[in-house]
Amino acid sequence: MTRVSCPLLRSRLSTAEEAAALIKPGDNVGMSGFTGAGYPKAVPTALARRITEAHERGEDFRVGLWTGASTAPEADGVLAEAHGIGTRLPYNSDPTLRALINAGEVDYVDTHLSHSAPQMWFGFYGRLNVAVVEVTAALPDGLLVPSSSIGNNKTWLDQADAVILEVNHWQPREFEGFHDVYYGTALPPHRRPLNLVDPMERIGEPYLRVDPQKVVAVVETNAPDRNSPFDPPGEASRAIAAHLLDFLRHEVVAGRMPPQLLPLQSGVGNVANAVLAGLDGSEFSGLVAYTEVLQDAMLDLLDSGTLRAASATSFGLSDTGVQRFMENIDAYKGRILLRSEEISNHPELVRRLGVIAMNGMIEADIYGNVNSTHVMGSAIMNGIGGSGDFTRNAYLNFFLSPSTAKDGAISTIVPMVSHVDHTEHDVHVIVTEQGLADLRGLSPTDRADRIIANCAHPDFRDRLTDYVARAKASRPTARHTPHLLDEALSWHQRYLDTGHM
Amino acid sequence: MTRVSCPLLRSRLSTAEEAAALIKPGDNVGMSGFTGAGYPKAVPTALARRITEAHERGEDFRVGLWTGASTAPEADGVLAEAHGIGTRLPYNSDPTLRALINAGEVDYVDTHLSHSAPQMWFGFYGRLNVAVVEVTAALPDGLLVPSSSIGNNKTWLDQADAVILEVNHWQPREFEGFHDVYYGTALPPHRRPLNLVDPMERIGEPYLRVDPQKVVAVVETNAPDRNSPFDPPGEASRAIAAHLLDFLRHEVVAGRMPPQLLPLQSGVGNVANAVLAGLDGSEFSGLVAYTEVLQDAMLDLLDSGTLRAASATSFGLSDTGVQRFMENIDAYKGRILLRSEEISNHPELVRRLGVIAMNGMIEADIYGNVNSTHVMGSAIMNGIGGSGDFTRNAYLNFFLSPSTAKDGAISTIVPMVSHVDHTEHDVHVIVTEQGLADLRGLSPTDRADRIIANCAHPDFRDRLTDYVARAKASRPTARHTPHLLDEALSWHQRYLDTGHM
Repeated sequence: MTRVSCPLLRSRLSTAEEAAALIKPGDNVGMSGFTGAGYPKAVPTALARRITEAHERGEDFRVGLWTGASTAPEADGVLAEAHGIGTRLPYNSDPTLRALINAGEVDYVDTHLSHSAPQMWFGFYGRLNVAVVEVTAALPDGLLVPSSSIGNNKTWLDQADAVILEVNHWQPREFEGFHDVYYGTALPPHRRPLNLVDPMERIGEPYLRVDPQKVVAVVETNAPDRNSPFDPPGEASRAIAAHLLDFLRHEVVAGRMPPQLLPLQSGVGNVANAVLAGLDGSEFSGLVAYTEVLQDAMLDLLDSGTLRAASATSFGLSDTGVQRFMENIDAYKGRILLRSEEISNHPELVRRLGVIAMNGMIEADIYGNVNSTHVMGSAIMNGIGGSGDFTRNAYLNFFLSPSTAKDGAISTIVPMVSHVDHTEHDVHVIVTEQGLADLRGLSPTDRADRIIANCAHPDFRDRLTDYVARAKASRPTARHTPHLLDEALSWHQRYLDTGHM
Repeated sequence: MTRVSCPLLRSRLSTAEEAAALIKPGDNVGMSGFTGAGYPKAVPTALARRITEAHERGEDFRVGLWTGASTAPEADGVLAEAHGIGTRLPYNSDPTLRALINAGEVDYVDTHLSHSAPQMWFGFYGRLNVAVVEVTAALPDGLLVPSSSIGNNKTWLDQADAVILEVNHWQPREFEGFHDVYYGTALPPHRRPLNLVDPMERIGEPYLRVDPQKVVAVVETNAPDRNSPFDPPGEASRAIAAHLLDFLRHEVVAGRMPPQLLPLQSGVGNVANAVLAGLDGSEFSGLVAYTEVLQDAMLDLLDSGTLRAASATSFGLSDTGVQRFMENIDAYKGRILLRSEEISNHPELVRRLGVIAMNGMIEADIYGNVNSTHVMGSAIMNGIGGSGDFTRNAYLNFFLSPSTAKDGAISTIVPMVSHVDHTEHDVHVIVTEQGLADLRGLSPTDRADRIIANCAHPDFRDRLTDYVARAKASRPTARHTPHLLDEALSWHQRYLDTGHM
């Protein structure tokens, strides 16, 4: 059965190759895709072939690639392999592309996700030439049933000069009704309040709009998203989760948190997964998520009633997750909503709802600054994503990581982080498998005492304590945030030189 | 004529000494005051005397001091001289107290101003024992006419166990009607949208409320605020202002900004003052300010019509400014509003209104990270204040500073900032007297090229270029943000060692 019911759009049915031929060297291309879900499956590969052929002819051919967040090997991967990307924003986690960024070949603009759509609309990134957006179906009137993620699709469809749609038959047709696309945004000074006070409130429409006259090609596909299930949480992750849950209980008892907590935001990854698994076995119930990605683990929580509902911008479900979703779809109706990432991550809403933000980190320093993006100061890992949107505006925020990496060669608690993504002014709680440091209302030196005592691995604790003591002694009139500037980053340099901090 | 018309409050009339006697060792004290305006003038001095006497008796006596922002010698200053402050938040600029913080004697919790009232209410800082709040008058029904700043007064009055009022006859009685105190805040999950879409919209009441039963003392005073006029802008400040104004013109021409710009936020200081003076002589008119402090320079703009109106949380007026204000008070009615700092700095509103944020800085690095708070990494200068609230949520943000300090011994453009308050993900435009670097949509290495070429002082430019080149060469697989970790902070260390970077 066709999923392209709009006659005008049907008249644009094309092959991926025909569609890719409409993208020119130097174009900025806005693709769908958020965390391995809802990215275009066919046009990027065809475009990559075109680019490779152009390169073989000695022609320059690179595009600016803008997305919701990370995509998959069939999008970022193939274009990176073809050396077809000049500029990339707002987020990447593809290993091939990461290598090109770190080689200095690709310009990567690592952006707060809530800023990406508005700043594009402001004109800060230049013109968007083409949008390539996966959808689930195109209805007779031209409205589009979104796919497994929304991300920045609304803005790309609105702002692009030309639009290529991929209609993916693999995506459940039953997605219709699971989306809430807000069309009330405006440029200042014409912006209005976002009238959402409950995470599950609908403020938009179930469909994406597109001007059919702008649609230059419609490509039908039938290909899965890339998400794979997470491994069961390891020992460190489970310990981190246990510390965090104990702390939440403590906050409820202290009257600083309602028994049903506040809306949960959870990053993606093994530690976040362990937290969700921990919640599932806990006494908490009737919780709600206001987050970016709905992972398999959240289906468990929805099934058990631990989670009453979840708002996100992406289904980050594995194959089995999608099967489970389909089998129980009626149970999820009205309990899951996908929104544009400018809404899922909006500071106004994150602050109003009082979100509890839980995100992983690469490292934290003794004064509470957090590095989420850079390995040893220079090489990008993935990007800041939504962690800044949620952390800054959260009621309470957590950063989670094992206390060591690389089999103990790296301490994730260091004298000074090699890159700052979340400042000492922003970070509330740091958790490792060693314990939890509640930094609220503490001065930098009190934070240092607590982080070293509670979070650092015993192998590194004494050296951190010694660092603070010598830093305090070195400059008696500079003891607010005592540092030895010629030693602050020496742990990282030592790792680069010797393989051990 | 009395300014304490409420009979119950009249019955509480006390001397400053009687009032100060109600404050106990270890109390957390929430005082009024924002940028040298509206702080209590008598009770802190009486408290400082009490503390000194206790110390002379060998007794421990320190309090936690919470304010709106900075105060003055008669508040922070006297309490610091008495060694009477244990913990201080959310902001300080008093030199005596700064020295104690940097000596490690006082715990300073340097906090985003928009976070201070909500986090206090959440219980993150502990109990507030006493509020000491200056007001202009107490009306018969107990409502309070606010003083020359609002800051966190609403929250302190609401949350404190006991309240001491100072009624200052020096403050113009005509302030009545110039304030808009919003009483719609709530703890999550009960928060609602802030229904403000124009900077001058009233969403609150002209008065502060207090439960008269909590008022333990009312002290009458007659003492001026401390603000002094700024010096006329120097050459570097005027050059910075000129670059910034040129850029705003350019943005208007490019269609990225309306001809009347967007609401302006401006930090306090010489450079900010130069920008305001520059605007006053420009073709711009009908502008509006959504900012923290209404300085003398803004009266000029209001008088000339360059500014149609201004919302702030504090009158940072000099004596002559107050005189001018009083002489033209009818012309300012309805064109000036003071709000609580949680509203003046609220992310929801800053983002919605599309504020243009202009703040000073201590230093920026070549990749666009900004240090607003720390001198050579360890010693606090003032604090982050509202710069993070505005920068992160602004439509467009600027950081302004001369390219050198200490007669050229310090470059304000460095390889790596010694402390990060605003990350590379947040900063749009850096301006020095050398020029302006528009960083929007640029990768870190492109930012470096532009900052070095446009903003760095020629004396340091080649060494910065050399740093980037050697950093790129040192690790060919880590070129996203190329750093030499053993050299990144060497400029600061060299300054500490030799007095020159």
